Amino acid sequence: MSDTIRAQFQCIDCSTQYSLRETVYSCAKCGGLLEVTQNPEVFTALSPDGWKSLFDSRAAGRPGFEGSGVWRFREWILPDLPTLDIVSLGEGASPLVMSQRLSDSLKVRLMVKQCGHSLSGSFKDLGMTVLTSQVHHLRREGMDIPAVACASTGDTSAALAAYGAAAGIRTLVLLPAGKISAAQLVQPLAHGARVIAIDTDFDGCMEHVQRLCEDEGVYLANSKNSLRIEGQKTVALEICQGLGWDIPDWVIIPGGNLGNVSALHRGFENLRQAGLISQIPRVLVAQAEHANPLYRSYARDFAPLEPIEAQTTQASAIRIGNPVSFPKAVRALKACNGIVASVTEEALTRAARHADERGLYLCPHTAVAQAALEGALREGHIEQGCSVVIVSTAHGLKFTEFKHATATDSVPEAKLGTARAPIEVAHDYAAVRDAALSNPG
Amino acid sequence: MSDTIRAQFQCIDCSTQYSLRETVYSCAKCGGLLEVTQNPEVFTALSPDGWKSLFDSRAAGRPGFEGSGVWRFREWILPDLPTLDIVSLGEGASPLVMSQRLSDSLKVRLMVKQCGHSLSGSFKDLGMTVLTSQVHHLRREGMDIPAVACASTGDTSAALAAYGAAAGIRTLVLLPAGKISAAQLVQPLAHGARVIAIDTDFDGCMEHVQRLCEDEGVYLANSKNSLRIEGQKTVALEICQGLGWDIPDWVIIPGGNLGNVSALHRGFENLRQAGLISQIPRVLVAQAEHANPLYRSYARDFAPLEPIEAQTTQASAIRIGNPVSFPKAVRALKACNGIVASVTEEALTRAARHADERGLYLCPHTAVAQAALEGALREGHIEQGCSVVIVSTAHGLKFTEFKHATATDSVPEAKLGTARAPIEVAHDYAAVRDAALSNPG
Repeated sequence: MSDTIRAQFQCIDCSTQYSLRETVYSCAKCGGLLEVTQNPEVFTALSPDGWKSLFDSRAAGRPGFEGSGVWRFREWILPDLPTLDIVSLGEGASPLVMSQRLSDSLKVRLMVKQCGHSLSGSFKDLGMTVLTSQVHHLRREGMDIPAVACASTGDTSAALAAYGAAAGIRTLVLLPAGKISAAQLVQPLAHGARVIAIDTDFDGCMEHVQRLCEDEGVYLANSKNSLRIEGQKTVALEICQGLGWDIPDWVIIPGGNLGNVSALHRGFENLRQAGLISQIPRVLVAQAEHANPLYRSYARDFAPLEPIEAQTTQASAIRIGNPVSFPKAVRALKACNGIVASVTEEALTRAARHADERGLYLCPHTAVAQAALEGALREGHIEQGCSVVIVSTAHGLKFTEFKHATATDSVPEAKLGTARAPIEVAHDYAAVRDAALSNPG
Repeated sequence: MSDTIRAQFQCIDCSTQYSLRETVYSCAKCGGLLEVTQNPEVFTALSPDGWKSLFDSRAAGRPGFEGSGVWRFREWILPDLPTLDIVSLGEGASPLVMSQRLSDSLKVRLMVKQCGHSLSGSFKDLGMTVLTSQVHHLRREGMDIPAVACASTGDTSAALAAYGAAAGIRTLVLLPAGKISAAQLVQPLAHGARVIAIDTDFDGCMEHVQRLCEDEGVYLANSKNSLRIEGQKTVALEICQGLGWDIPDWVIIPGGNLGNVSALHRGFENLRQAGLISQIPRVLVAQAEHANPLYRSYARDFAPLEPIEAQTTQASAIRIGNPVSFPKAVRALKACNGIVASVTEEALTRAARHADERGLYLCPHTAVAQAALEGALREGHIEQGCSVVIVSTAHGLKFTEFKHATATDSVPEAKLGTARAPIEVAHDYAAVRDAALSNPG
């Protein structure tokens, strides 16, 4: 390991740089968003073929970080991090699932990148392994970081709690009292996180978290922390590697806070910097109609963000009216000639049913992406015969209520017209046989 | 593809062979259990190094069956199956997760093979991809198979429904009316399976399934069908490959119907036949005390099976008093000098808490395996410093009630003495800070 520093935080507006040892989450000079930047020579240290054979040699399935789909690309993530400090729980290395029947029915070559096949069940693990590893490293070097913290009621807290537990770092989860059921908290509680229910709203929790970070040296794990993007960008790296170092025509990703959109773009840009690909795929960001500020901006030629009050949607994790990573997402979309779609509750529910009956098991956010694909094909934005990768952001198993409502046709604002239910029959073979083999009624 | 047939069903008692085209689930001559056997030359067609480089060249992450951790080993599974007939949903290729903190606390090198990181959330996907692919193949060759069917209320029906949906084969799930909630059926219903609730008990459902298979050409997908074992054996193949074609000292696996035990053994035996390993690892089969007929036999020097009435256990999927694959499991245990453990409800709950607070998220069955490891270390059956792989059979996300009960210390028959719950505080920074940073009370 050389003494040269090869990665740092950098303001996306004024380009001021900060050491990764600093606990800084936005630019001290101009208040802009930060991103992690690696020095350009990081990506040209090997030839394109050199990178391909290095990354291909790191097979998934090996124990610990050696099998991680994030740390397989470690030279491009935190090149100065000692591998001994990595906190890995088998993240990444997720399958690119194909349902031939679904592809046939849509007349595209459809692949689903299953980022929810992970320990905590969502793509958040990809970012948390990076953030937690960096904190683990700083603590082992003697920095006094008493805890990692986030304000979250969902996937973020579950992932943070898992990685905090693996590293032995105290994990704080702050949330509004009385609005969250114990069942929603089962993952952070199981991992031994300290869950603090505060008599305020979500913004109030966020203020307390930020003050803990400023005053007490607690480390912020909310999406403002750009370390997480470095883990999430490996979705793009894995897709490209899975296709034999090629790109699909389209990548479709659900968009809420929009960090994942910019992460995807960073991954493809890194591949281009390193010479592994010559162009980047087009990206479709799929939003729920009830929470579509990016779509509204896109529809007016990327007009400035107008925050909205997001309405209830089945895609609860992307119910965000004022997305933190809006500027990064716009930059990414412009760079790849991307598009944005807005999807109704009925369309996402139909898309989930359509896909599940062909072997997938979509979470509601992935269903938004699936519905956006179906819409884009109808409207001609995506052509038949294309290769399309949908980024699935969570496992359907985390959304049993949605799956149940979809099967029983009881999703609010979505009427599919058919409910799935058991067929009740008597203990009589003829009755069983008729129920089993009759044509659909 | 040569015309030689390289795999068939074979009776484990009288060695009578049947074509894989026959719909036969037990020996027509003696009633014995069948297994799939590949001709010996299947395993010696390449040198050990030839196999290693072939299998290593098939990277996880590629689209469709090419990234499958099952079909990576296709020459050893169904060597006569055309790859075009494979029905894959990204099964296998699961991580070998290490929690350094858990290893440190137990003083072993512990790895968890996460077979629950899959589309349906359990290891059953491994077997169902093989069974469904074979059925898909037979149908494409013109055989009239109107449906695949199982009697199941759990993981088996979920996996079968997913693969049936992917292949476009009608899937029948038979179960006792009134005993299953709609929430338990959400996976098969979502995948469009025909769920038939019969006014009888589980044995009655099994009889109807078997008659549908005998009289109507429906294909049986219950664990009697030995095709599933061929998929499940890839757990052993993947473990070995993940360790650089080496074996761990111990593999620990939860045991109910015991098919997975014999599958594990078959995988290691195949590796030995092919010359990739020279000895097989020892296996510990972990049973819940409330459903431990194998343990009872083992404790009396493998006395003949005495079926018991299994009692309620958190590890509901292994609540089986009369395991179908008992003879195969005994054969496997004798061959590898294996042992069997029996674990109380309290021990499995404590083990889940212990592991989850170090970054895992164990389903109750995997918790039985974890508790068995802890017990075996205490009692000296497994020595400190060993390398141990626990086979995790399902994702913790499928068992939210168990995780919730474990966190809140409300598992029946298990008193941990501490309940995890949110700390409620006022909207006041000093109060938040104290709650966040005080020492554990």
